[in-house]
Amino acid sequence: MEITDIEGVYCNGIKEGKLGLGIVRCRGSIAGVFTQNKIKAAPVTVCKENISDGHVEGIIVNSGNANAYTGEDGIRDAKEMCRIASRLIGCEPGDVAVASTGVIGRRLDMEWIRKKAPEVYANIGKSNLHADRFARSIITTDRFVKKVYSEKAKISAVAKGAGMIAPNMATMLSFIFTSASFDSGELYEMLKRAVDQSFNRLTVDGDTSTNDTVLLVSTGKERVDADVFEEELTNICYNLAKQMARDGEGSTRVFEVVVEGAKSDADADRIARAVANSLLVKTAVFGRDPNWGRIIAAVGYSGADVDDRITLSFESNSDEIVLVDWGKPTRREAEARDMLESCEEFTIKIRLEKGSGKGFAIGCDLSYDYVRLNAEYTT
Amino acid sequence: MEITDIEGVYCNGIKEGKLGLGIVRCRGSIAGVFTQNKIKAAPVTVCKENISDGHVEGIIVNSGNANAYTGEDGIRDAKEMCRIASRLIGCEPGDVAVASTGVIGRRLDMEWIRKKAPEVYANIGKSNLHADRFARSIITTDRFVKKVYSEKAKISAVAKGAGMIAPNMATMLSFIFTSASFDSGELYEMLKRAVDQSFNRLTVDGDTSTNDTVLLVSTGKERVDADVFEEELTNICYNLAKQMARDGEGSTRVFEVVVEGAKSDADADRIARAVANSLLVKTAVFGRDPNWGRIIAAVGYSGADVDDRITLSFESNSDEIVLVDWGKPTRREAEARDMLESCEEFTIKIRLEKGSGKGFAIGCDLSYDYVRLNAEYTT
Repeated sequence: MEITDIEGVYCNGIKEGKLGLGIVRCRGSIAGVFTQNKIKAAPVTVCKENISDGHVEGIIVNSGNANAYTGEDGIRDAKEMCRIASRLIGCEPGDVAVASTGVIGRRLDMEWIRKKAPEVYANIGKSNLHADRFARSIITTDRFVKKVYSEKAKISAVAKGAGMIAPNMATMLSFIFTSASFDSGELYEMLKRAVDQSFNRLTVDGDTSTNDTVLLVSTGKERVDADVFEEELTNICYNLAKQMARDGEGSTRVFEVVVEGAKSDADADRIARAVANSLLVKTAVFGRDPNWGRIIAAVGYSGADVDDRITLSFESNSDEIVLVDWGKPTRREAEARDMLESCEEFTIKIRLEKGSGKGFAIGCDLSYDYVRLNAEYTT
Repeated sequence: MEITDIEGVYCNGIKEGKLGLGIVRCRGSIAGVFTQNKIKAAPVTVCKENISDGHVEGIIVNSGNANAYTGEDGIRDAKEMCRIASRLIGCEPGDVAVASTGVIGRRLDMEWIRKKAPEVYANIGKSNLHADRFARSIITTDRFVKKVYSEKAKISAVAKGAGMIAPNMATMLSFIFTSASFDSGELYEMLKRAVDQSFNRLTVDGDTSTNDTVLLVSTGKERVDADVFEEELTNICYNLAKQMARDGEGSTRVFEVVVEGAKSDADADRIARAVANSLLVKTAVFGRDPNWGRIIAAVGYSGADVDDRITLSFESNSDEIVLVDWGKPTRREAEARDMLESCEEFTIKIRLEKGSGKGFAIGCDLSYDYVRLNAEYTT
């Protein structure tokens, strides 16, 4: 089920070299969650304003240039993008949502956008092909397009994001469409909670790019139970976050860090994030090295209240290898290494004896290709 | 001027494969600053206790095994190391300082240490050769030995540390000797402030390894003005921190991030550290890419109070290239790229218009070799 299978959603996109442009026509209610970065890109500012009335007629997105740190000129350009789309769609500029991703600090090539937008819109449609063209138009260093849907909740979503992630990520854009009927206030509350249980586990609040944008649009009148919808929405966001980790620039292994028994949920989250973000843990995973000492060190500097009573295991496909048992090493590194060699995803489980706090984070390994991609993705 | 040129300092060391052992004989007053990590290695616990009376007779250090997360066994082993050294030196075990660096979570090879310690001590001495052997015995992945001295303040120091640094570093050990006469309370106050202006700029408080140890030993009776001594001590620590950055695993460029005009000194430090720790900035520097957008993004997510009024420049050998002037890009990337190609060290200067807060941090780039070293430095 593609985004174009959602009632009222039409789209198209093109990619020319590093530049891409995508347009969606989608009349409905809308909610958005945006970057926490204090330096916000112009499209973030404009998009927030345009969706503040909860109504949307369309979305315009460009890739290759983030239109970030471009001052008043950038704001004008983002508004101009909305105006261009609005003329094509036949609506007010204020009813168009806008997003950008790419290099920071450069003016948009508005000539190119002005020229390409009518071409894109002229061929807008509802087939898989159109959905695919839109998905491809918004990606940058992504190795693959991220899509996921829920039949049950009438949701289909597409996302872009392979920038690796905390402690500093490239832009994450996600566009989620549903024919289930909710107003923008309802959409916002559900989206905020879903993002907290998914994308924020990958990106660490605050360590976000200048452009991060997640939009949720309801275009239909179908009735879906709110609890079911929120659960499915959360699963969709979680699935997209996992896909981004899998596509983490150069990543070869995705892992989840699950923490239990911390003094508080906040402490558990701190530990999970410290481990998932540790460069030494990431490089060890890339080397298929069950170097649990580095994990313990990260637990220690996470800022959480911890002591030596730690139980640590690797889990994959319901196979669990305990490496540290209540503070005692078990010497099962050889088995853990085999698991790392053979699995694509695994879980690092950490159990403390401090309380009942739980938390989790999603991470991926750090490879040569991460360095190559980011040393060469150039201004 | 080697550490053995300090009155009363005798040393020696050996390295066999990945294992190293060094011993110093040095009667005097002592102060130490240790890791902030909540999981502290056994030698840290034992060393703190042994130097708490401010008196020292000798130091024993091993490399290749951190004796960290080894529970009560580890404490016993660290105490046993002190006992071995004390018997050789002819003092109480409680007058011996101890430090370890290497893999976490493994018992020390005490057989090896028991066998090698008498050999090391039998050849202890005061020549450059002895100083060099000690320096080499304590290193792990270091590409070079770190040493520095001050004639004026009668200080000579040696250090180990190439683990890269925040957001998570391998162990940093530093042994600083002086023939200037200060008691342990005076030494501690000066050392604490010096470390804050040097090593802590590299390591971010709290993001420290399980074993980090800086010891300052006064063995002589020479009179040096306290202000002069502290200034020289700070310079020595700063110099060692820079050497560690230069030896940052696989690093090819060292940079300092200097922030002015922040709302507070704390905000300035936050910004400096966010930029110095940004993986995207580090990889850009490795790619010789003056990608100031990534720097601006890091400023934005640092947590400091910031707005768009940022002036950003690269400086090297008194040559300054302004890349952003009060929020306006200057398009001087080509010149900045030339600077990055040709310099070994440079400074990223960031000026805000928020107040008079100042701060700095030291960073290095992230290269393929960082990944290789840490994927292969194996359990």
